[in-house]
Amino acid sequence: MGEKSQVQTVWSESELSDLAIRAFQGLGLPEVDATDVVKVLVLADLFGLSTHGLSRVESYGERLLVKGINARPNITVQAPAPALRLVDGDNGVGPLVGMHALRAAMDAARQCGIGMAFARGSNHFGPISPYSLIAAEEGFASVIGSNATTTIAPWGGSDARLGNSPLGFGVPNPGGSPFLLDMAMSVVARAKIRNAFKRGGAIPDTWATDAQGRATTDPKAALDGFLQPVGGHKGYGLALLVDLFAGLLSNAAYLTHVKSWVDAPDEPQNLGHFFILIDTRMLGSAQWLSERMMDFAAILHDSPAVDPERPVMVPGEIELKKMAQQRTNGIVLDETTVSLLMQHASA
Amino acid sequence: MGEKSQVQTVWSESELSDLAIRAFQGLGLPEVDATDVVKVLVLADLFGLSTHGLSRVESYGERLLVKGINARPNITVQAPAPALRLVDGDNGVGPLVGMHALRAAMDAARQCGIGMAFARGSNHFGPISPYSLIAAEEGFASVIGSNATTTIAPWGGSDARLGNSPLGFGVPNPGGSPFLLDMAMSVVARAKIRNAFKRGGAIPDTWATDAQGRATTDPKAALDGFLQPVGGHKGYGLALLVDLFAGLLSNAAYLTHVKSWVDAPDEPQNLGHFFILIDTRMLGSAQWLSERMMDFAAILHDSPAVDPERPVMVPGEIELKKMAQQRTNGIVLDETTVSLLMQHASA
Repeated sequence: MGEKSQVQTVWSESELSDLAIRAFQGLGLPEVDATDVVKVLVLADLFGLSTHGLSRVESYGERLLVKGINARPNITVQAPAPALRLVDGDNGVGPLVGMHALRAAMDAARQCGIGMAFARGSNHFGPISPYSLIAAEEGFASVIGSNATTTIAPWGGSDARLGNSPLGFGVPNPGGSPFLLDMAMSVVARAKIRNAFKRGGAIPDTWATDAQGRATTDPKAALDGFLQPVGGHKGYGLALLVDLFAGLLSNAAYLTHVKSWVDAPDEPQNLGHFFILIDTRMLGSAQWLSERMMDFAAILHDSPAVDPERPVMVPGEIELKKMAQQRTNGIVLDETTVSLLMQHASA
Repeated sequence: MGEKSQVQTVWSESELSDLAIRAFQGLGLPEVDATDVVKVLVLADLFGLSTHGLSRVESYGERLLVKGINARPNITVQAPAPALRLVDGDNGVGPLVGMHALRAAMDAARQCGIGMAFARGSNHFGPISPYSLIAAEEGFASVIGSNATTTIAPWGGSDARLGNSPLGFGVPNPGGSPFLLDMAMSVVARAKIRNAFKRGGAIPDTWATDAQGRATTDPKAALDGFLQPVGGHKGYGLALLVDLFAGLLSNAAYLTHVKSWVDAPDEPQNLGHFFILIDTRMLGSAQWLSERMMDFAAILHDSPAVDPERPVMVPGEIELKKMAQQRTNGIVLDETTVSLLMQHASA
């Protein structure tokens, strides 16, 4: 509104994807691999998850440049059983390893009805909902998880020994919107505590502990301490389960064996992921599934809202609506990310 | 300690199982089916989960007597794909349907590395940890869930439209204790709110809402309202996911289609369950898995406890310790349950 109002570029999905693919090629990736990475990150931006979208070119790029991530990995897939796949990411960019594992699990599920891929030798793989959407669009329900750098104390403990591991789910709806749930295990993201600290307010004592592992309402103490898992011991248990599947069973690193990419950007993290895919076409017709999914959503939407301005939602609706809007109106990306993409693209 | 101190019978596991099997036979079940049901319920009592153990003979018995549950179901298993099983419980006792589905999923996982059973036409199937333990003892990691009668409002809604659906996980440890996590989606059980009401105290505003769906610290208002899911919208999403897998994809009832066994004890509930089993023997040797599971637990145990009296635990440790104690010292069951078992056993 000011005299010097900044002109923000509005991107179409394909223009932005083209630029980002060239950027990752500039960072050393073959075009086909860059395309996989960008598929996940652009979907994240379309969903409005900008912290997990193309802005990651910054941290991925830094690690690619110091060889902390392998730009040209030799990703291998083994099949120890008809429905299982073991993916070794060879320290490739996370979303590339993720896309290989997703395709391997879908392939197994097409053959057996359900399939599972365990990935090791990976890195941060973006948010989960892009993978869940790709799976849902091909008819697969999904359970997907990844482990992460340690930021959470065990329940009752007092130092960081587990990650804020994300866990996500999808259920397809051939006649409408799929169900998409993508959650980390902390009550809130660290950014919410930082905001409270800046405002000078107190935080609920369920959000975080101080450095000694004691519940706190002081945002400063919380920032020096640890995020609390949702539901206390329940979220602690869930975060462990994700690490057991994504890290321990996948033969990747787990708990404190996961290296911090901030502290050691030039060392492989050996993160792990798991992808469980269920081929819903084996369970009933598309019409059967659509009718049930539409009825399921209608039952929830029909619950009278506590606040009439905020009707009841089904998980995934916010992200899918944002995607539809941006596909119509274009995507606005922050200028830092755009210049970084341009810089790498012209390298 | 008083003059008339009651003599409580201490049962061995086999004595108690024998009595309970005869009780369920008295309620009309064939011996082999009664044995399945009792296997799950006695494990629940051994774990210290008495609300989900043999005390359930009361509600199961009432419904069997009014034909709300079928004492002699024709349970069928279909295999629409190599790793999928569709189990129709024909309105049998829940733990019987659960054991059929568990075995079907283990069978599929032995063949394909991962297997999944969807069960419909079922009833309350006990707690999840007994199934997870049975699976873990045979080398399977598990993800198991069930839907339930509606007691929770959708996030932002104001009437009960989803159940406090339990979700459980297990990971075997060939050299020690398996990981066992069995959680419902509410922050606390209703009993904790009832206790606060009896004591006359306030409750944290994260436990429940009043009948209008607004957060409350008044236990009376909370008892008239709805349990809150763990992590707010996160627990809401997880509870929905469990219902989508256990109810919607299994072709059972879901959300408000699930009938309340309290309001309509003589009608089939058509509850659904799902069992995802992973054969960990396909992933590595028993020694490989043991070493990793021992290391995993050691890392957690080594976190200095906030309260030195309460060391850090790994999910499942409390239940497995209780089981070991009771297998050594015998099981003490409440007298109401014992007399009910005896009554049905002599029918």
